[in-house]
Amino acid sequence: MSNTLDLLNWRYATKKMTPHQTVPAEKLDIILEAIRLSASSSGLQPYQVLVITNHELKKQIRPVAWDQSQVTDCSHLLVFAAWDNYTEERINSMFDLVNEQRGFKNEGWEAYRQKLLGYYPQRPAQENFEHAARQAYIGLGSALLAAAEQKVDATPMEGFEPEKVDAILNLAELGLKSVLLLPLGYREAEGDWLVNLKKVRRSTADFIINR
Amino acid sequence: MSNTLDLLNWRYATKKMTPHQTVPAEKLDIILEAIRLSASSSGLQPYQVLVITNHELKKQIRPVAWDQSQVTDCSHLLVFAAWDNYTEERINSMFDLVNEQRGFKNEGWEAYRQKLLGYYPQRPAQENFEHAARQAYIGLGSALLAAAEQKVDATPMEGFEPEKVDAILNLAELGLKSVLLLPLGYREAEGDWLVNLKKVRRSTADFIINR
Repeated sequence: MSNTLDLLNWRYATKKMTPHQTVPAEKLDIILEAIRLSASSSGLQPYQVLVITNHELKKQIRPVAWDQSQVTDCSHLLVFAAWDNYTEERINSMFDLVNEQRGFKNEGWEAYRQKLLGYYPQRPAQENFEHAARQAYIGLGSALLAAAEQKVDATPMEGFEPEKVDAILNLAELGLKSVLLLPLGYREAEGDWLVNLKKVRRSTADFIINR
Repeated sequence: MSNTLDLLNWRYATKKMTPHQTVPAEKLDIILEAIRLSASSSGLQPYQVLVITNHELKKQIRPVAWDQSQVTDCSHLLVFAAWDNYTEERINSMFDLVNEQRGFKNEGWEAYRQKLLGYYPQRPAQENFEHAARQAYIGLGSALLAAAEQKVDATPMEGFEPEKVDAILNLAELGLKSVLLLPLGYREAEGDWLVNLKKVRRSTADFIINR
């Protein structure tokens, strides 16, 4: 028995959302908290989540997101935006926070800080961004399960022009680049071609390799 | 109230696992099924999961994974391995499976197949691999929650030499490249420096941007 599997089976990439229903604040907060608590490489959490409710902003984003209707019909549009680079400042800020929260400095942890400081800031920004972007997808995995638990529909989207979304949201000045959109809301079953179709996945035999 | 948040708070990147306890098959199957059911871009599921129980293989992998003890002490070592490229064959195989499982061909779906066929196989393999790798991280997000639900400990790991793991597991001949390790097992609290330390995350105010 697994509630997690029930949630994964319940969810689907909602193709049509109703513009008439708002996700309650307490449900939204749980979804955002699930992202915030997600694992990330070295605990750096190298991304931020924008929560867009301003209808004008949604209207600007929709045409650069393949004109997908969920962008404007959703209750809240989440934008996962990854760090454009790993800098000394960003790395130190997370290690300092850990020390502050735990109330002590740890030799092994400080050595690990130095290891990252000697490695990440020297790599090309694009390589660091790619690495940061991957971490946002762990958060997406958590968000989809938390949304399903709250019976909130969601549509993970890569189909958009990141540079244009970045420009609309002024992400460059925050040192961020958009990697994922996630409209949250409620399905409008009429007009959603996917709602009643079977979820298809490769068989376990094709997906899992035992060694 | 959210069970998802409870699970995220329960889990941590286990630093020391006991070599004396095996994850029961039914729990392992739930974790693997959670990965298999996870969302992926266009539903392509562009990765596979290797489940390694062979101790000789684990012993070969440990030295190329920063000598982390969980690699050999774990019950099952999962290796997430992404497609090295998007090929026509791989794309067609997934679209064919969808048609077969749903029992009909859909015009919009076929147009989408052509769109992907006209786009992905022409891109550089490295760009396709990076895209595929990101999808594996969604599966990781699901796996961490499913493992926590089953009270199974897990350690997401990027600290390894992918080319060497690929060579040990002969992944090139499967057209795969390793992107993540995930030892599954049970914590050995003595000797785990992280087990009793506070989970630290950036504050909601620092992580979430409202627009």
